[in-house]
Amino acid sequence: DFLNALHEIIPAFGASTDDLERCRLNGMVDCGPSGSGKTAMSATVGIDSDFPYVKIISAETMIGLSESTKCAQIVKVFEDAYKSPLSIIILDDIERLLEYVAIGPRFSNLISQTLLVLLKRLPPKGKNVLVIGTTSEVSFLDSVGICDAFSVRFHVPTLKAEDARKVLHQLNVFSEDDTDVAAEALNEMPIKKLYMVVEMAAQGEQGGTAEAIYSGKEKIKLSHFYDCLQDIVRY
Amino acid sequence: DFLNALHEIIPAFGASTDDLERCRLNGMVDCGPSGSGKTAMSATVGIDSDFPYVKIISAETMIGLSESTKCAQIVKVFEDAYKSPLSIIILDDIERLLEYVAIGPRFSNLISQTLLVLLKRLPPKGKNVLVIGTTSEVSFLDSVGICDAFSVRFHVPTLKAEDARKVLHQLNVFSEDDTDVAAEALNEMPIKKLYMVVEMAAQGEQGGTAEAIYSGKEKIKLSHFYDCLQDIVRY
Amino acid sequence: DFLNALHEIIPAFGASTDDLERCRLNGMVDCGPSGSGKTAMSATVGIDSDFPYVKIISAETMIGLSESTKCAQIVKVFEDAYKSPLSIIILDDIERLLEYVAIGPRFSNLISQTLLVLLKRLPPKGKNVLVIGTTSEVSFLDSVGICDAFSVRFHVPTLKAEDARKVLHQLNVFSEDDTDVAAEALNEMPIKKLYMVVEMAAQGEQGGTAEAIYSGKEKIKLSHFYDCLQDIVRY
Amino acid sequence: DFLNALHEIIPAFGASTDDLERCRLNGMVDCGPSGSGKTAMSATVGIDSDFPYVKIISAETMIGLSESTKCAQIVKVFEDAYKSPLSIIILDDIERLLEYVAIGPRFSNLISQTLLVLLKRLPPKGKNVLVIGTTSEVSFLDSVGICDAFSVRFHVPTLKAEDARKVLHQLNVFSEDDTDVAAEALNEMPIKKLYMVVEMAAQGEQGGTAEAIYSGKEKIKLSHFYDCLQDIVRY
Amino acid sequence: DFLNALHEIIPAFGASTDDLERCRLNGMVDCGPSGSGKTAMSATVGIDSDFPYVKIISAETMIGLSESTKCAQIVKVFEDAYKSPLSIIILDDIERLLEYVAIGPRFSNLISQTLLVLLKRLPPKGKNVLVIGTTSEVSFLDSVGICDAFSVRFHVPTLKAEDARKVLHQLNVFSEDDTDVAAEALNEMPIKKLYMVVEMAAQGEQGGTAEAIYSGKEKIKLSHFYDCLQDIVRY
Amino acid sequence: DFLNALHEIIPAFGASTDDLERCRLNGMVDCGPSGSGKTAMSATVGIDSDFPYVKIISAETMIGLSESTKCAQIVKVFEDAYKSPLSIIILDDIERLLEYVAIGPRFSNLISQTLLVLLKRLPPKGKNVLVIGTTSEVSFLDSVGICDAFSVRFHVPTLKAEDARKVLHQLNVFSEDDTDVAAEALNEMPIKKLYMVVEMAAQGEQGGTAEAIYSGKEKIKLSHFYDCLQDIVRY
Ligand SMILES: Nc1ncnc2c1ncn2[C@@H]1O[C@H](COP(=O)(O)OP(=O)(O)OP(=O)(O)O)[C@@H](O)[C@H]1O
Ligand SMILES: Nc1ncnc2c1ncn2[C@@H]1O[C@H](COP(=O)(O)OP(=O)(O)OP(=O)(O)O)[C@@H](O)[C@H]1O
Ligand SMILES: Nc1ncnc2c1ncn2[C@@H]1O[C@H](COP(=O)(O)OP(=O)(O)OP(=O)(O)O)[C@@H](O)[C@H]1O
Ligand SMILES: Nc1ncnc2c1ncn2[C@@H]1O[C@H](COP(=O)(O)OP(=O)(O)OP(=O)(O)O)[C@@H](O)[C@H]1O
Ligand SMILES: Nc1ncnc2c1ncn2[C@@H]1O[C@H](COP(=O)(O)OP(=O)(O)OP(=O)(O)O)[C@@H](O)[C@H]1O
Ligand SMILES: Nc1ncnc2c1ncn2[C@@H]1O[C@H](COP(=O)(O)OP(=O)(O)OP(=O)(O)O)[C@@H](O)[C@H]1O
Ligand SMILES: [Mg+2]
Ligand SMILES: [Mg+2]
Ligand SMILES: [Mg+2]
Ligand SMILES: [Mg+2]
Ligand SMILES: [Mg+2]
Ligand SMILES: [Mg+2]
Repeated sequence: DFLNALHEIIPAFGASTDDLERCRLNGMVDCGPSGSGKTAMSATVGIDSDFPYVKIISAETMIGLSESTKCAQIVKVFEDAYKSPLSIIILDDIERLLEYVAIGPRFSNLISQTLLVLLKRLPPKGKNVLVIGTTSEVSFLDSVGICDAFSVRFHVPTLKAEDARKVLHQLNVFSEDDTDVAAEALNEMPIKKLYMVVEMAAQGEQGGTAEAIYSGKEKIKLSHFYDCLQDIVRY
Repeated sequence: DFLNALHEIIPAFGASTDDLERCRLNGMVDCGPSGSGKTAMSATVGIDSDFPYVKIISAETMIGLSESTKCAQIVKVFEDAYKSPLSIIILDDIERLLEYVAIGPRFSNLISQTLLVLLKRLPPKGKNVLVIGTTSEVSFLDSVGICDAFSVRFHVPTLKAEDARKVLHQLNVFSEDDTDVAAEALNEMPIKKLYMVVEMAAQGEQGGTAEAIYSGKEKIKLSHFYDCLQDIVRY
Repeated sequence: DFLNALHEIIPAFGASTDDLERCRLNGMVDCGPSGSGKTAMSATVGIDSDFPYVKIISAETMIGLSESTKCAQIVKVFEDAYKSPLSIIILDDIERLLEYVAIGPRFSNLISQTLLVLLKRLPPKGKNVLVIGTTSEVSFLDSVGICDAFSVRFHVPTLKAEDARKVLHQLNVFSEDDTDVAAEALNEMPIKKLYMVVEMAAQGEQGGTAEAIYSGKEKIKLSHFYDCLQDIVRY
Repeated sequence: DFLNALHEIIPAFGASTDDLERCRLNGMVDCGPSGSGKTAMSATVGIDSDFPYVKIISAETMIGLSESTKCAQIVKVFEDAYKSPLSIIILDDIERLLEYVAIGPRFSNLISQTLLVLLKRLPPKGKNVLVIGTTSEVSFLDSVGICDAFSVRFHVPTLKAEDARKVLHQLNVFSEDDTDVAAEALNEMPIKKLYMVVEMAAQGEQGGTAEAIYSGKEKIKLSHFYDCLQDIVRY
Repeated sequence: DFLNALHEIIPAFGASTDDLERCRLNGMVDCGPSGSGKTAMSATVGIDSDFPYVKIISAETMIGLSESTKCAQIVKVFEDAYKSPLSIIILDDIERLLEYVAIGPRFSNLISQTLLVLLKRLPPKGKNVLVIGTTSEVSFLDSVGICDAFSVRFHVPTLKAEDARKVLHQLNVFSEDDTDVAAEALNEMPIKKLYMVVEMAAQGEQGGTAEAIYSGKEKIKLSHFYDCLQDIVRY
Repeated sequence: DFLNALHEIIPAFGASTDDLERCRLNGMVDCGPSGSGKTAMSATVGIDSDFPYVKIISAETMIGLSESTKCAQIVKVFEDAYKSPLSIIILDDIERLLEYVAIGPRFSNLISQTLLVLLKRLPPKGKNVLVIGTTSEVSFLDSVGICDAFSVRFHVPTLKAEDARKVLHQLNVFSEDDTDVAAEALNEMPIKKLYMVVEMAAQGEQGGTAEAIYSGKEKIKLSHFYDCLQDIVRY
């Protein structure tokens, strides 16, 4: 449903600039709990778009850099984007880019100001930039004023029991009857944690059964599945 | 109405200095929500004025610079203005120039002090400077003491349904009957967001209809227009 | 009334040191709202005094300097004053010298400490320094302890309707009858704002009437005067 | 019981990556009072695992280093781990790595951000990293957001009287009858403090009896044991 | 009364070290309102003592120096004192040495720590140091822990009407009858302000009468004396 | 009583390491009011122990050094201690080492972290370090987490009247009858202040009687003793 929405926006975005050359950057924030698939979704949009310029800005590639070096790298990505008629910039985990911690709170104002200006700045004539931001800390971004710079907002939902059932069905690691029961226990679970608990359960109580399970020869025992579920920390 | 007010001030300002050589800088703050047209209005005043020196000071051209470099650039603009008998300086998005974030709040005191002094300093004899400032954070500027340095204040309004109707009429993208209904839905919308939602709607549900709509061959479907409106985040 | 007071102090001050060589610096704080004439009054005292050394210390001439450079310049002024038997130092807008903003509050402790020591330090034998400080932020200066270093305090009043009438009379820009009405409307207005609103009104509704008004050929229309008054921000 | 749990996870972890090459780092936080055996337990897991790469990151080896040098060393350990198909990284005393003190609180945000990114970053394809973290300050780590990066959490318990009895039995330093009484007095004591009090008691009231006690020739006197217990500060 | 107390301590202090060589530094804090005579009293003690080493440490001679340079100068004074068998060190206006302002409060911790250590450190054998500190901010010094380092404390009183009468008598600037009335009006006035108001009054209403008054030819008019008193800011 | 306790611990400590080579550093905090004898007691333990390596770490020898230099010196002392099989390190006035002031509070986190790690780090095999810390700010050290690093805690008491009597008896400066009365007045007095007041009193009202008193020829007059007591500031 929300993936459809995203795919709808891309052609619209592309078209508008061709026609009117009046459109400016049109970002969006995907908000959701940790591991709900925000990064995956943004990346998918980028890859599916066939835009000539797609770039992800992530804290992972900037570990240990100084604030000003990070700023320079971010500015560089935007400048490069302006050279292409159509480009997508993904700001992944914006709170991490801003070096945010809740205590204080502390964060880099240098990077905040840079993003605030870049997100409002119009690209040169005939150039169009779509900025997609992901975050788990919407209320922090809001108080920094970064949310205002995005016009569209999506909330990535956790999986319902119904969704979990579909995933488990496809993985085919439970017996027919157990699938529904297990799915029920996975209600409201982020997708990443769902994968993790299935993987732990697939090893079996003594370990070593994963191959058998994934090849379909054996099934996960429900009681062991519950034990694994217990160990996993819900957020 | 407020555009008239501005155009009235300019000749008055020009004249007073010619006559008395006693007038000092006379600024004003345009306050309004994001995207309401503050920058556009200030720029219009500057262009329409035919003053020999018109300069905009904006955070966009100072990304990543140090506080002291920004200060030096701001001072330079004022010094240059003093060489012309009549000049206009536009301080666009003052909160961004001050590197403001609500958390803390944090901001550059170096730049604040520089602006406070520059805004109060009399230009040399026979020189006149009109400073126009724009901001969406009036209460912050007030607590920094910058509002006191401006004598006149305008509040840029959001569009009423009546204003929206006129804009839609001119764009001619809705059928006669739909225009009024759509305008009603755009009540209290900042102008920038109005343009954005029309553009999104013009693409149509499957995309690609923008050309037909803007050329007048087709009209925007009201139901799709409502969908687009839903996605746009009101402030 | 307060100007008299000031002129009374100067000879007293001068004499005392000649006689007793026991007198030390005797400062005063002029407090009043922005634009009430504090700087003008201090400057007048300095010029009228005929003291061999009169110096104004103002943030305007120190824009963008580092705290320690500002300190050095301030110390230099005091050291130079010690070379003259009678000197006046004007600390204009002390809160601006201290780089004060209400948020926090923030200010330069380096400059505060320098002023605190300089204001208490006795000049060398046979030398006398009168320090006059101006400020609109008395309560801040008080909490920094700077007010204690001044023994005499004046409060520059805003103009009463009566005072405004006298000023308007002298300017001769209203008809006889209108002068009283306009003066009433200017009650409690700082002098700087009074000048500003008269100047704006003198341009007339369409602009260009200033020359005629100031030369006495025309008078300001009361209705237009009220419009201008509306636009001016009272503090 | 919890040691079993840990040994269960290791093969599961190893297997999953061999099979699916989809597993990412799977950390855990051992929380417990000071001296309860957190470091010992983590080290045991590392040694028992037979993983080709096992590394402990501890503040002990980084005393006096700057924040950025510490970051660089931590990043290096992770980068090296990515070269091995299976590796374990132990982050011992995470609050100490973050230079945490409760007052403020103060801590290194540079190191926090580095850990937050490293703990979420997926290792390269075919590589698996198990990160084990120990801490006595769970609530601090939680507010920094580091707890969220760990999926499994163990709480190392203090010893019950029952556990203490077993340890005392093995040490064989009390007479048969006294063992139970002494064990009762050691209820809820962290293991490190248990060892310390036994050692102090073994010296005897005049000192010098330790050799006789440990060789089994003499037994600890209960009254002296109680005296030693008194001096030890419970947390 | 308190001057007696001080003169009593000096021989006692001197003697004790001669006899026992066990005495360490024995400081005292003179606390009182601004201008009450704290510095004068401390200086008098130093001069009257005939100690071979008497040094005053004052912010006046360290304006604009960095914290560490100030520390070095303070340490130097103590080190030099240790070379003399008997020395007095006067720490004048300790809050100013610590660069204290009430807002925050802010102060130099580097200098605080230096003083805390120096005040507790025992001088070498056979050397004796008497440290006298003056301050108007006892409660601040207390919260920094500096008061604890002083064993004896004097509170310099403001003048009572009785004391003021004696001073006025000696100055002989009022008529017999007026002296008592004027003294009554000076009740609770710090001595420095008393001198200042007499000096102002001696100039007369038109100025220039000071010589006549101080030579005894004329007397101060009581009504003018009251006017001067009005202008002086009581603390 | 507490001196006994300390002397008991030393052999125990020494023995345990000889026997078991399993013992790690075993510190203790002496807490008590200023001047109660904490430093003296710690030094006594160090001297009496006959350990080959005894070192005191004190702020007195590190005045004016930077935080990192202080850290380096502290680390050096611990490293050197590891070269000796048995060593004692005295951390005198830990709050001073940490540059603590109550306002804020402020302190050096660099030094705090260094101590926290050093106090927990196990010495190399066969080496034993006993760390003794003294402080008057137990609750501060507790909130920094340093108290947890010490297992044994002593509270140095102030003197009771009974203890004061014994000291006065030995000093033999009062007449038989006065000793009891004076001792009563010294109840709850720290030992350092007791010595100070006796010394002041021994000078006599006019000074100069100290020699006579200490040689036993004269006795201290009780009334003068009470006067001196009055001047001393109790904490
Ligand atoms: N729609 C999906 N279908 C299948 N797998 C998915 C889907 N979305 C996410 N995943 C899986 O879940 C994992 C976690 O997703 P992702 O990293 O995008 O979450 P996230 O919300 O960005 O988490 P974080 O808050 O930690 O950044 C991915 O590695 C991917 O394997
Ligand atoms: N009077 C107007 N008529 C037509 N279009 C306008 C008008 N005012 C503004 N716009 C359009 O709206 C857009 C947004 O205006 P502008 O950038 O001036 O708003 P702003 O208030 O400065 O916003 P921000 O708070 O984001 O700085 C402009 O790009 C312009 O195209
Ligand atoms: N007594 C006066 N008579 C005539 N004009 C005056 C008088 N006092 C002040 N003015 C005019 O008012 C203007 C403002 O005065 P001034 O700058 O001294 O005010 P201020 O109190 O220092 O303001 P600010 O708080 O902004 O520093 C001056 O430029 C001067 O032209
Ligand atoms: N299971 C165990 N069996 C025997 N001895 C143990 C065990 N666990 C811990 N110990 C002993 O207790 C001591 C303290 O354990 P350890 O250092 O691991 O505790 P910790 O929880 O990491 O303490 P800290 O909070 O101080 O870091 C170890 O030196 C070890 O000798
Ligand atoms: N006992 C005294 N007799 C006569 N004059 C005195 C006496 N004490 C002080 N004065 C005068 O009062 C003046 C102020 O005294 P002093 O500077 O010592 O006060 P202070 O308490 O140190 O003030 P501050 O708080 O400003 O440092 C001195 O310059 C001296 O002339
Ligand atoms: N047991 C004792 N017998 C005799 N004299 C003592 C004793 N203990 C301390 N003193 C004396 O008291 C003085 C103060 O003791 P010490 O400096 O050890 O106190 P402290 O508690 O460390 O004080 P501070 O809190 O100021 O560091 C010492 O110089 C010593 O002369
Ligand atoms: Mg993500
Ligand atoms: Mg704008
Ligand atoms: Mg002024
Ligand atoms: Mg540990
Ligand atoms: Mg003084
Ligand atoms: Mg001590």
